[in-house]
Amino acid sequence: MDVQTLGARAKAASYALMTMGTEQKNRILLAMADALEARAEAILSASDEDVAAAEQKGMSRAMLDRLALNRKRISDMADGLREVAKLPDPVGGADQMVRRPNGLLIAKRRVPLGVIAMIYEARPNVTVDAAGLCIKSGNAVILRGGSEAIKTNTVLVRIMNAAGAQEGLPAGAIGLVEDTSRETATELMRLNDYVDVLIPRGGAGLIRAVVQNATVPIIETGLGNCHVYVDDDADLDMAERILFNAKCSRPAVCNAAEKLLVARPVAKAFFEKGLEPLRAKGVELRCCEEACALIPWAIPATAEDWFTEYDDLILGVKVVDGLDEAISWINAHGTKHSECIVTENYTKAMRFMDEVDAAAVYVNASTRFTDGGEFGLGAEIGISTQKLHARGPMGLNELTTVKYCVFGSGQVR
Amino acid sequence: MDVQTLGARAKAASYALMTMGTEQKNRILLAMADALEARAEAILSASDEDVAAAEQKGMSRAMLDRLALNRKRISDMADGLREVAKLPDPVGGADQMVRRPNGLLIAKRRVPLGVIAMIYEARPNVTVDAAGLCIKSGNAVILRGGSEAIKTNTVLVRIMNAAGAQEGLPAGAIGLVEDTSRETATELMRLNDYVDVLIPRGGAGLIRAVVQNATVPIIETGLGNCHVYVDDDADLDMAERILFNAKCSRPAVCNAAEKLLVARPVAKAFFEKGLEPLRAKGVELRCCEEACALIPWAIPATAEDWFTEYDDLILGVKVVDGLDEAISWINAHGTKHSECIVTENYTKAMRFMDEVDAAAVYVNASTRFTDGGEFGLGAEIGISTQKLHARGPMGLNELTTVKYCVFGSGQVR
Repeated sequence: MDVQTLGARAKAASYALMTMGTEQKNRILLAMADALEARAEAILSASDEDVAAAEQKGMSRAMLDRLALNRKRISDMADGLREVAKLPDPVGGADQMVRRPNGLLIAKRRVPLGVIAMIYEARPNVTVDAAGLCIKSGNAVILRGGSEAIKTNTVLVRIMNAAGAQEGLPAGAIGLVEDTSRETATELMRLNDYVDVLIPRGGAGLIRAVVQNATVPIIETGLGNCHVYVDDDADLDMAERILFNAKCSRPAVCNAAEKLLVARPVAKAFFEKGLEPLRAKGVELRCCEEACALIPWAIPATAEDWFTEYDDLILGVKVVDGLDEAISWINAHGTKHSECIVTENYTKAMRFMDEVDAAAVYVNASTRFTDGGEFGLGAEIGISTQKLHARGPMGLNELTTVKYCVFGSGQVR
Repeated sequence: MDVQTLGARAKAASYALMTMGTEQKNRILLAMADALEARAEAILSASDEDVAAAEQKGMSRAMLDRLALNRKRISDMADGLREVAKLPDPVGGADQMVRRPNGLLIAKRRVPLGVIAMIYEARPNVTVDAAGLCIKSGNAVILRGGSEAIKTNTVLVRIMNAAGAQEGLPAGAIGLVEDTSRETATELMRLNDYVDVLIPRGGAGLIRAVVQNATVPIIETGLGNCHVYVDDDADLDMAERILFNAKCSRPAVCNAAEKLLVARPVAKAFFEKGLEPLRAKGVELRCCEEACALIPWAIPATAEDWFTEYDDLILGVKVVDGLDEAISWINAHGTKHSECIVTENYTKAMRFMDEVDAAAVYVNASTRFTDGGEFGLGAEIGISTQKLHARGPMGLNELTTVKYCVFGSGQVR
């Protein structure tokens, strides 16, 4: 089905979803979950085909692992839908309702966005997660996954639509762009008649392409050049634990630390002991001149390093004068995702929180907590690194907008 | 000053404004207000130059009136700044603060957006209004007004910056693009390094150009193809009053009604009496075939009419079957601004509110109320007709975003 048709069908479906009750939406989600498990064979066989094709194309082992499904992963996806069914419905109520002096009663109600488009890479679980979150929040969704997962995604969407239809899910509510050429992605980015918001999830190249080409409203997600700043008033043992966790617990994700800034007065002391766990883990350090002189295993950093998100066991290391330089450095080089200071000094902690411009700012805790689950949102469709509409982890609430409902009795102005 | 330099200066200023206290921001606004009145001569002389040049170019009387300033209008602009100083500061507090099971204390604080760019037409009061609202909400602003008002805008911005500086307004906080060529507007739309959000205010052509060309996040504003639907259960006298007010009280603004839909059972009766006030006012009616047959002074509507915002004493008129057709017609032809039903039927009123997709949906009240002042926001920087970030009238709160501040004690994941 072409992108225009998918758009028109999704828009039509969105009007039915807009007013659908919570109980029905939950029944749809549970039916979808059951169907995914019941049809596991079909999903696995599609997944095997995708994996075989990707192997032939020479995909890396790590990427193949993200692509491949097994029974456990299918059950996890189904359980994900069941969890979303349990979450409170963000739609329909009012954030506030006021009576104006002229008697008008104005409710600012929370309503679905309408049609949400997603462009994403590799992992097929995004297909199920996104569909579940969009339906629960009353939105239709148009999915455009990568070519590597197209067979799996096609089967997943067919199963979800068929099971959902049994409980009244309107046709077109979950659309999949089956032609994974670059042209369909661009078409989706410019489908202003039908798409209310486009959320890209993937690497820097994808995000850049969307920012440059989209005419529909977008939410940028997931670029994380995150810093840990070890202040001269830091508890250096705590700094060592936080740094190791932020860098090494899951290096490929966007909330992992990519850069270490250390205040000059404690640089030598921290480098001597605090970097040992990283060395044992095989982390490569790309360092400023001053750090190079203090760390035997350092590699000199290039100017580009300071802007790079490695998503790997690599860490940029820089010595700074202190708090002021740390703040201005982060504001100039970060991606406004997650930034951390380790310090025992109250005033410096508060200044860092106030003055660093990022979605999440941490004092004495790992950047790895920037996550919908960890923040208590229950689920997450992505982590926004823009300032418009949503910032940081986006849950169900971030998939809604508002509508002013004005109850009058003949008022004119 | 070129657009890049304006951007860099605004971004630097935004960091100082981000943490500036409310009292200081208010002192800046009051100093700006006083300076505008004290320097009224200089403003009037610039305004006279702009008006003379516009007259030579053959600008219409209505446009000239919007462009020209006088002492009263200067005082009104100054009073506007004083009103903004009185409004509560949206910045710094938290919408919510939670303690997570692991002890992390997470505050979702409200913070400024950073740098707001505005592209707008003719009226120089927007220059002062926008500067005041942006500063109060802790943002730097880059203004790009039209060529017709460039001398006036230049003087206004100089006066505001100079007066603000006395109270600590950072240099570059209010930037003005003095080169009003199309190229500078396009450059501003693509200034992603510095601009956090761009708000266009103007006609359909400007909004379309921004949607097509911008790579920075934008908020679409102010396109209003608004409908009044007179239901077969309407109080026809009330419908007559509401329609007249919605169409005629200020036809050039975006919340004025542009279309009338009437349910077939009451069409003849309503047309006979309810349109009389419009006829007396000289409103031109562009009608569907059925309405043409019932209204002696009707002009046949073209297909394009149904999508057109006239901003003039013109009204499109269409007979519909009833509620269902009214809702689907509005969703297909409206601009998602303000839509109204007149009815005494409770169920139909609630359905209209639920099913019409617009920023403001009215039962038995004029669409003309969609306005920051009327909704109790205190002031307004525009009316958003998109769904992302802000919808309907945008006040100070809509010029902010959130930041998660995470207070830890050594937590790792």
